[in-house]
Amino acid sequence: MKSGNSSPNINRRVLVAGLALLPALSGIPLAAIAAAQTTQGGSLASWNDGAAKQAIIDFVRATTDQASPKFVPPEDRIATFDQDGTLWVEHPIYSQIVYCLDRVPAVVEKDPKLKDVEPFKTVLSGNREAIAKLSVQDLEKILIATLTGMPVEEFEAEVKNWLTTAKHPRWNRPYTDLIYQPMLEVLEYFRANGFKTYIVTGGGQDFVRAYSQNVYGIPPEQVVGSIGGTKLGYRKDGKPFLTKEPKLLLNDDKAGKPEGIHLMIGRRPRTAFGNSDGDRQMLEYAWAGDGARLMMLVLHDDAKREYAYGPAQGLPATKFGTFTQALYDEAKKKSWTVISMKNDWKRIFAFEQGT
Amino acid sequence: MKSGNSSPNINRRVLVAGLALLPALSGIPLAAIAAAQTTQGGSLASWNDGAAKQAIIDFVRATTDQASPKFVPPEDRIATFDQDGTLWVEHPIYSQIVYCLDRVPAVVEKDPKLKDVEPFKTVLSGNREAIAKLSVQDLEKILIATLTGMPVEEFEAEVKNWLTTAKHPRWNRPYTDLIYQPMLEVLEYFRANGFKTYIVTGGGQDFVRAYSQNVYGIPPEQVVGSIGGTKLGYRKDGKPFLTKEPKLLLNDDKAGKPEGIHLMIGRRPRTAFGNSDGDRQMLEYAWAGDGARLMMLVLHDDAKREYAYGPAQGLPATKFGTFTQALYDEAKKKSWTVISMKNDWKRIFAFEQGT
Repeated sequence: MKSGNSSPNINRRVLVAGLALLPALSGIPLAAIAAAQTTQGGSLASWNDGAAKQAIIDFVRATTDQASPKFVPPEDRIATFDQDGTLWVEHPIYSQIVYCLDRVPAVVEKDPKLKDVEPFKTVLSGNREAIAKLSVQDLEKILIATLTGMPVEEFEAEVKNWLTTAKHPRWNRPYTDLIYQPMLEVLEYFRANGFKTYIVTGGGQDFVRAYSQNVYGIPPEQVVGSIGGTKLGYRKDGKPFLTKEPKLLLNDDKAGKPEGIHLMIGRRPRTAFGNSDGDRQMLEYAWAGDGARLMMLVLHDDAKREYAYGPAQGLPATKFGTFTQALYDEAKKKSWTVISMKNDWKRIFAFEQGT
Repeated sequence: MKSGNSSPNINRRVLVAGLALLPALSGIPLAAIAAAQTTQGGSLASWNDGAAKQAIIDFVRATTDQASPKFVPPEDRIATFDQDGTLWVEHPIYSQIVYCLDRVPAVVEKDPKLKDVEPFKTVLSGNREAIAKLSVQDLEKILIATLTGMPVEEFEAEVKNWLTTAKHPRWNRPYTDLIYQPMLEVLEYFRANGFKTYIVTGGGQDFVRAYSQNVYGIPPEQVVGSIGGTKLGYRKDGKPFLTKEPKLLLNDDKAGKPEGIHLMIGRRPRTAFGNSDGDRQMLEYAWAGDGARLMMLVLHDDAKREYAYGPAQGLPATKFGTFTQALYDEAKKKSWTVISMKNDWKRIFAFEQGT
């Protein structure tokens, strides 16, 4: 599950050759010998053969083969991925919301008068039905109370700690076990071919950064998310520190995704992956550029192994994002590729038995 | 002057060795063969021997030698550099301000009623003395009028075009010729040793991104600057585009520098270079972390080859930034290294004759 790899760009064959031939380099961190890449690098072992897998392979070949008319120089190989519902499970509720709900007792302990104030009172009651009915406005109050007001390092440590204990109710496994294995393989395949992989999520930028390197092999600076302000303060010993402020600088959803991409990357992605209307503008932004482009949408149509929701599926969409029929129609019209979890993915999670 | 190098991580000696020994790699973009580094990589040829040069070498050795107790893994090697006055000339006025003043006629042409409105009227008059007396508020109006309201690609093209024609009044050379050669060498030296180099500037993020790759070998996503909002719109053909909005998301100066570093990088830099009070908080932020740290300040004390201003110098500070005596005292107290342009730099610009 964890890539545990601080240097995702390494192609093993070339790396081994390089080490054998260049004894002068011994003592150099392996991470430093990056990116001597071939198009074959990486495998898509958890993908069934089909149009979706082929679209990925064709795009990578077209953009990395120097003889190709669609060749893209390495510095322009930018790939962006939505997270919730695209890289990991988003049902029945975003993991970050679960985190925030789980943090409420600690927040109330620090500020006991919140005990009798809504929506904190409802969360503390443990009444799942009532909690599920909380409005978006209520959830925003909980997000602000649980995601801001502490130093950035303290927040990071709290998220990391939570991930070691919290479990998804259906699988009774850590949320980081619920990464889609086929998408991990796509991330690695792109990186093996010189693409810089970015997460572009409506979730909190600092939340996702707390685990992006370990879980996705993506360093914090390649996480674009909803951005809250920070404020510099000084400790008694004169050392400065940053506190997370209840001030939203960027809502990285819908139109906010291209805006966040410009802010954080400054270039238009060559390829973009999403699964909901929140990703539409990001895919349109990638699509509107010149040359080879690859836009893909994950369709949740596998109630047995994961969930089924979105166009022509039974389950209602999540509270925040949804794959509408209109998005499905736009994808067809613009020749974006829809990934069927049921048909295109041999296995969904690393913990499943291979077929 | 221009590095013209899309892969700033290449150490030439190792690269050449690698190419000779690894014929299997032919056909792979040179950019892909990055970072096979030795601590010796890069040269500081424009530096005189002395405490400043030695501090840089000692820091790089301590952080990259795996046997060193201060070894830093490659993913944590973050180096941040102020731009104006640290990487290139900031006197008599920031280049970006010159750009904005130069753009005023084009803005007035599009919106003729501005012709009789201040501060545009003064700028159009060409009266240098009156222009020099414009207040910060007046300049802000000019900045907003000239830096926003157009698509991001159009802005980038305008800046690139301006840089090919505009010249610094003293040297009668393009502004990009006025990069400090010793600092270019430091950037390359850090990169050759696995550091990711970032510009952290009070200037506009999009402005600096227009030339950062060509001039400094730093890609757009590694430029942290003052950030304006953008807004997504659609052309008639359904293609989305981003327009620069007159909305400041981050003023990347003073306390805004650590805040911008957290926003864009998400990690504390190991080393930071600046030259004014606007950089104080960034240097403090780098200094306050654990392990090996290197904080450096460029002192402009060379009236003959460049300018002399700041502590105990003759020339007044620039309108926006200044190296105060208090900062100088703080540097001494915290053992930050002050670089004397006069004594530490053998040559300042690439176009000078070497000594």
